[in-house]
Order: sequence, then structure tokens, then C-alpha cells
Amino acid sequence: MLEANGNSEFNSKWLQIDFVLSSWLHCKLPTGAAMNITSLTCYMNDSTDAPPLVMEFIQGGPTSLVVILDLPPRRDLVLYSDYLKTFYEETELEKQRQLLLDTIPEAKPYVSPSLYIRCVFSPTAITARVDTSVGGGGGETRLEEIVREGVSVAAKKVLETWLEVCACGEKREVTQEEDRAYLKKRDAMFKSKTIEVDIGSSLPRLFGQEIADRVLAELRVLMGSRD
Amino acid sequence: MLEANGNSEFNSKWLQIDFVLSSWLHCKLPTGAAMNITSLTCYMNDSTDAPPLVMEFIQGGPTSLVVILDLPPRRDLVLYSDYLKTFYEETELEKQRQLLLDTIPEAKPYVSPSLYIRCVFSPTAITARVDTSVGGGGGETRLEEIVREGVSVAAKKVLETWLEVCACGEKREVTQEEDRAYLKKRDAMFKSKTIEVDIGSSLPRLFGQEIADRVLAELRVLMGSRD
Repeated sequence: MLEANGNSEFNSKWLQIDFVLSSWLHCKLPTGAAMNITSLTCYMNDSTDAPPLVMEFIQGGPTSLVVILDLPPRRDLVLYSDYLKTFYEETELEKQRQLLLDTIPEAKPYVSPSLYIRCVFSPTAITARVDTSVGGGGGETRLEEIVREGVSVAAKKVLETWLEVCACGEKREVTQEEDRAYLKKRDAMFKSKTIEVDIGSSLPRLFGQEIADRVLAELRVLMGSRD
Repeated sequence: MLEANGNSEFNSKWLQIDFVLSSWLHCKLPTGAAMNITSLTCYMNDSTDAPPLVMEFIQGGPTSLVVILDLPPRRDLVLYSDYLKTFYEETELEKQRQLLLDTIPEAKPYVSPSLYIRCVFSPTAITARVDTSVGGGGGETRLEEIVREGVSVAAKKVLETWLEVCACGEKREVTQEEDRAYLKKRDAMFKSKTIEVDIGSSLPRLFGQEIADRVLAELRVLMGSRD
């Protein structure tokens, strides 16, 4: 959880954040390579409709990386075009997406096998697969270079945008009871489905069903207690 | 508009369709090549929440084609996971998307420059750019081959799915007044924004502002009279 400091203005801003979930999964693969999944999600509460922050880095080996960086919308963007404008059209998120995918030849769009996961992303989501195994030697060095010069820059920019516009920006207050109930319902669905699809599919494969069940049960209790 | 025949069961099924908009835009480009944009959209009315059919083929020259084939959802898929299941997870749309994008090397994902347009698509939307200009001669012949063996097959499958599951399938009736009002509002936004972004940006470039304004005014009257 984020620590509050003594500044009350600062504190009141952080009150929009519901909770922060971060994890690092590490596992030796049968191939000998190591799988590392690092993720950070900052969920917002229903006092605002500002998007959460989602960051995930899946490294399946020394020359392969899947990057997910997004502020997934909390409203239906087809209906709420002002929401689209505020968080996506008027920020620099699209520029970062293009920079990463158009200037790094080894980066290709990553399409999640889960149709549900595809739906939760914003239109400016950075979902990329970087593969430096082809094209001769230096694959590991090249991946490190891409992380340092491309991925890291994009990640910092996405975090910066989220801090400025969502976490510490002018608060988009949600006051109507009906509207808060809508957000609560949509957020609950978002959380339960993404955990079920994302962690529920990778954990059993990596650590076996028993450990996966224990972790998922704890997460469901955590999520449930906050709805 | 679709013609009704004498069979009453057949007729009642077509009553779910609001109207069909088809267009063919042809224009000589300064480069000497011809630009051809063919599109077909079958809109549904608010007696059902089944998706419409959207097909668009943008040929910017003899070796370049953008293909858009989709049944854009009429509900927020993050919230309505049963809708996602019925129209996307349980149909063969994703298989067609993969077939086209994974087996034809000249086909790459097409990302619309408009963030709003990106939002209206389903997670199984086929949005591809086919470019046969590189890789030596035979570009025109190769494009024709791809259209015949790849694009045409996918387009027929998407049309077939729409006919079976949306237009003539078991009707997903929307009876609650509140729910119909929601669909009406979302559909109106979808129509006005897609026409504004799609036609409103291409028409002035192709035919000048005056003609574009006249066409758009007529379309707005048509759309407005149906809301």
C-alpha cells in the first residue's frame, strides 16, 4: 500500500486509490530458462472514475519479453466520448504506443489469447511482444538495450500520465449514487474476470493446481472484501 | 433496404434489421492510381441487442488493401460477459481473424488512427492491411490471390456468422424499456461518431468540402430520422 505523508493535500489525492497489487512470479522452465512475471496494478475506488494503472512484464527467456502498459478505462468508451478525450486523446499515451511499436523492429503487437482481456484494454494500450532471438547473435544484449531505451521510457511515461491525470490530477468526482453503483459493478467484474483469466491460467501451469488455488482464494478474499 | 419475401417467418426475422447502408467511393488519386472504398453496414434496431455487420474494403492502389470485417458489440463487453460469450467466444470469428493474419505474410494488423473507431470494434475484429508491393514483382497478381483465397473466405464466414447468430438466429429480444433506451442512446452515439470520424475525414480529402458536406448532411438526416 502507498504510504501517506504528513501533507494533507497530498493525502486527500491518494484517497482515490483503492489498493495496489504487485507481484513477482519466478519459475524455472523445463527448457532451463527462467520465467519472470512482474506486475503492478493500482486500482481506483468509486469516488472517481479515473482509470487504474496496469503494468506487466512477462519474460519467458533471455530474448523474449511481453510488455503490457495501460490505463484501462472504467467506462464504455463508445458511449462516453468525453472520457476517451480526457484520458486517451488528450494525453501522450498514443504517442508512446507508436514509439514503441513503430520504431523497434523486434516489437510486435501482442494479442492476448483471452477475448475478455482484449476488451479491458484502452485504445492506446501498449501490448507488445519483443523477440530478439532471431537475426543473429547478441539477442540478450539487444533485449536489454530495448528494455533500457524503449520499454523503460514508455513505462515511465505511462506511469507519469497516470500520476498526473488519474492519481494526482484534478479529481473527476463521482457523486451520484447510481453512477457509483455502476462503477462498483463494472470494477468488480473487471477484477474478478481479469484475475480468473490472467492468474487463473498461468499459475496452475507454473506452480501446480494446489498452490494456484491457495493464491487465488486469498486474492478473491482480498477483492471481495473491497467490493 | 432488404426486400421482404412472402414467407412470414422469414419476414419477422428481418424485422430486427434497422437499415442497410452500402457505398462505393471511387476517386482518381494524384499518383494516377485509383482509390476504391466499398462498405456495407447492416444496423440493427432496438428490439434486439445483436451486433450489426460492418464490412469495409479500402483499396488505395493495385497492391494495397485495408480490410475491416466485424460485428461491433452493442454492449460494454467488460460488463456483459455473456454477450461476449454468445457472439464472440462461441462463434468462429476469432478463428477467421487468426487465419487471415497468421497465415498471410503480407497481412498486418491495421490500427485506425481514430481512437474512437478502435473502441467500437469487437475483440475478434478483422482489421488488416495487405501490402503486396514489396518482395519483387507480381504484386497485383498476389493481391488478387489473397483477396480470392483469404479475404473473400473470411468475409463470407463473417457474413455467415452474422446471418446465423444475429440476423436470423434465435432472437435476443430486448423488452425492458430502460434497456431499449440504453441501446438507442449507445447506437445513436456509435452511428454519429463513426460517420463523423470515418466519412467526415475521408470524403473532404477525396471529393472536396462541398460534396462532403452535402453527403454528410443527407446521412445525418437519415440517421436522425431513425433514432
